Amino acid sequence: MKNKQFLLKTRPIGTPTRDNWDYVETEVPELADKQVLVKVAFISLDPAMRGWMNDGKSYIEPVQIGAVMRASTVGQILKSNDPKFQVGDYVYGHCGVQQYAVVDTQGLHKIDPSLAPLERYLGVLGMPGMTAYFGLLETGLPKAGETVVVSGAAGAVGTVVGQIAKIKGCKVVGIAGGADKCRYLVDELGFDGAIDYKSENVKKSLKALCPKGVDVFFDNVGGEILDDVLTQIRMKARIVICGAISQYNNTTPVKGPSNYLTLLVNRARMEGIVVFDNVANYPKAAAEMAGWIKEGKLKAKEHVVKGIEHFPETLLMLFKGENMGKLVLKVDAE
Amino acid sequence: MKNKQFLLKTRPIGTPTRDNWDYVETEVPELADKQVLVKVAFISLDPAMRGWMNDGKSYIEPVQIGAVMRASTVGQILKSNDPKFQVGDYVYGHCGVQQYAVVDTQGLHKIDPSLAPLERYLGVLGMPGMTAYFGLLETGLPKAGETVVVSGAAGAVGTVVGQIAKIKGCKVVGIAGGADKCRYLVDELGFDGAIDYKSENVKKSLKALCPKGVDVFFDNVGGEILDDVLTQIRMKARIVICGAISQYNNTTPVKGPSNYLTLLVNRARMEGIVVFDNVANYPKAAAEMAGWIKEGKLKAKEHVVKGIEHFPETLLMLFKGENMGKLVLKVDAE
Repeated sequence: MKNKQFLLKTRPIGTPTRDNWDYVETEVPELADKQVLVKVAFISLDPAMRGWMNDGKSYIEPVQIGAVMRASTVGQILKSNDPKFQVGDYVYGHCGVQQYAVVDTQGLHKIDPSLAPLERYLGVLGMPGMTAYFGLLETGLPKAGETVVVSGAAGAVGTVVGQIAKIKGCKVVGIAGGADKCRYLVDELGFDGAIDYKSENVKKSLKALCPKGVDVFFDNVGGEILDDVLTQIRMKARIVICGAISQYNNTTPVKGPSNYLTLLVNRARMEGIVVFDNVANYPKAAAEMAGWIKEGKLKAKEHVVKGIEHFPETLLMLFKGENMGKLVLKVDAE
Repeated sequence: MKNKQFLLKTRPIGTPTRDNWDYVETEVPELADKQVLVKVAFISLDPAMRGWMNDGKSYIEPVQIGAVMRASTVGQILKSNDPKFQVGDYVYGHCGVQQYAVVDTQGLHKIDPSLAPLERYLGVLGMPGMTAYFGLLETGLPKAGETVVVSGAAGAVGTVVGQIAKIKGCKVVGIAGGADKCRYLVDELGFDGAIDYKSENVKKSLKALCPKGVDVFFDNVGGEILDDVLTQIRMKARIVICGAISQYNNTTPVKGPSNYLTLLVNRARMEGIVVFDNVANYPKAAAEMAGWIKEGKLKAKEHVVKGIEHFPETLLMLFKGENMGKLVLKVDAE
């Protein structure tokens, strides 16, 4: 049985290219005890994957050179050496960028394709949804009537952050790239306003849309946008540092926020989050979000690209801001 | 009655010079109702004064051009139009850089020179002491056994932060400029270690002195030192942003912390403080600190320069790092 895989070949300097991976065909190995064979259906594309390609200490081990590129996935079990998993079961796990994965069952959990399309378990019902839920509610601590701003607002995390903030009674402004995304945020997702950073002066637009200032900023982007928002924060503002996609492909040092002293003037807080810390509470969050989806308060959107061979270019769409909603790669070309 | 005063003449670009003030002699005006005449004894020199010279929104109004330079002071009442204040009373207040001040009594409070030398009410028993107390205990939240690092460690705030952290059972490392200051921190104040940023590689020394990493960083300095400490923070670290003296005279934008994404990796927090928020609790803090002083656990040190005419050069000592302990200007030359 043949298996197409992307193996990390070299660590990128700056923006990754196809040459950073080997696209190979290998034999699927035999199963050891407590292992299963998964046919991968959808592969998640996440900004964090850029960090996993770097060497050095982070919140998770780097992908080793020669190893299958790490990725969250959903798929179906074809063979099982663990009585807890049956052939035919659908599972979420880190099966990597490949067609078939032989993996330990420890990191897998079952998902139900009758409740939601498979790919949704990589979006609202998966890591990005959990990141938005816990990052906003437990670190951003929004109160009804407050103003919440989110960057990367049309992405997998941003769309969920904004919608949850609306559910909690906040005024919500999204920052995204392009008029289409901004229209989508306001017209489809119910944001109170959206700023197109590609065509607008973010600072001026923030002043206009958030005249009382910003209480909570959920930042996925970093760079100039973080600095612009820092000029508009209110007293006791909370800034959630979820990511800094504008900086991940830098070949020069990360741009630190020059305006960080507004934290002092405003007695404000900037705090980093990593979703894995909340793993024990995922089921509770997933249940609450499923309820919101059922009530029509939380809309899910996936951006699906087909064909595993397109992995490198699909990953780069994230950094070019070409996706709207959760970006996933369907392994099969059809 | 003649009064020598420093009036703000121009707003500095970069480091202030004597030419930014007019040093003038004026007549002391008559007292209105609820006003007193104060003979200023000691003038506090604080890094924040540099910010007060700038135009623009901050946590406090800028000093107006032509106005007496704002400063915290201690002095004695010579005339009183308020029955609550008697001639002879000693008071703390913002009387400015001048020999005599006619001021409303609203911002004054009495101090007792029999309990501590007058100038101490500008240091440990004044704003720097309160800044250290509330910033460390309520925002830094140190726990016994944790590692606390403080920058500007030999200054008015830093010396108190380090000593309170020791009282709370923490391991304490100070960052200061020069071997004399570092010896003072360890030998006189009981710090566990000190790093001379002028002669050492701060990152390497931090690794050596804090092998488990930094739980609380109390930052008075900003710039490269903040970035170096960010590389060494532990999980759930708290970074208290009290000031950024390295950046106050910049003519280029403030250096933002390039390593701020370690906040994310470590789920850490960076939070700004302004001491005035705790004004209601000053008496409780002052009482506790007075107790520590009496027990010999908290040592006070003032660095006194004599002669009001030396105000501009004395203020600059702060930015050159030439003071050890709380820098004050004695109005009289003797």
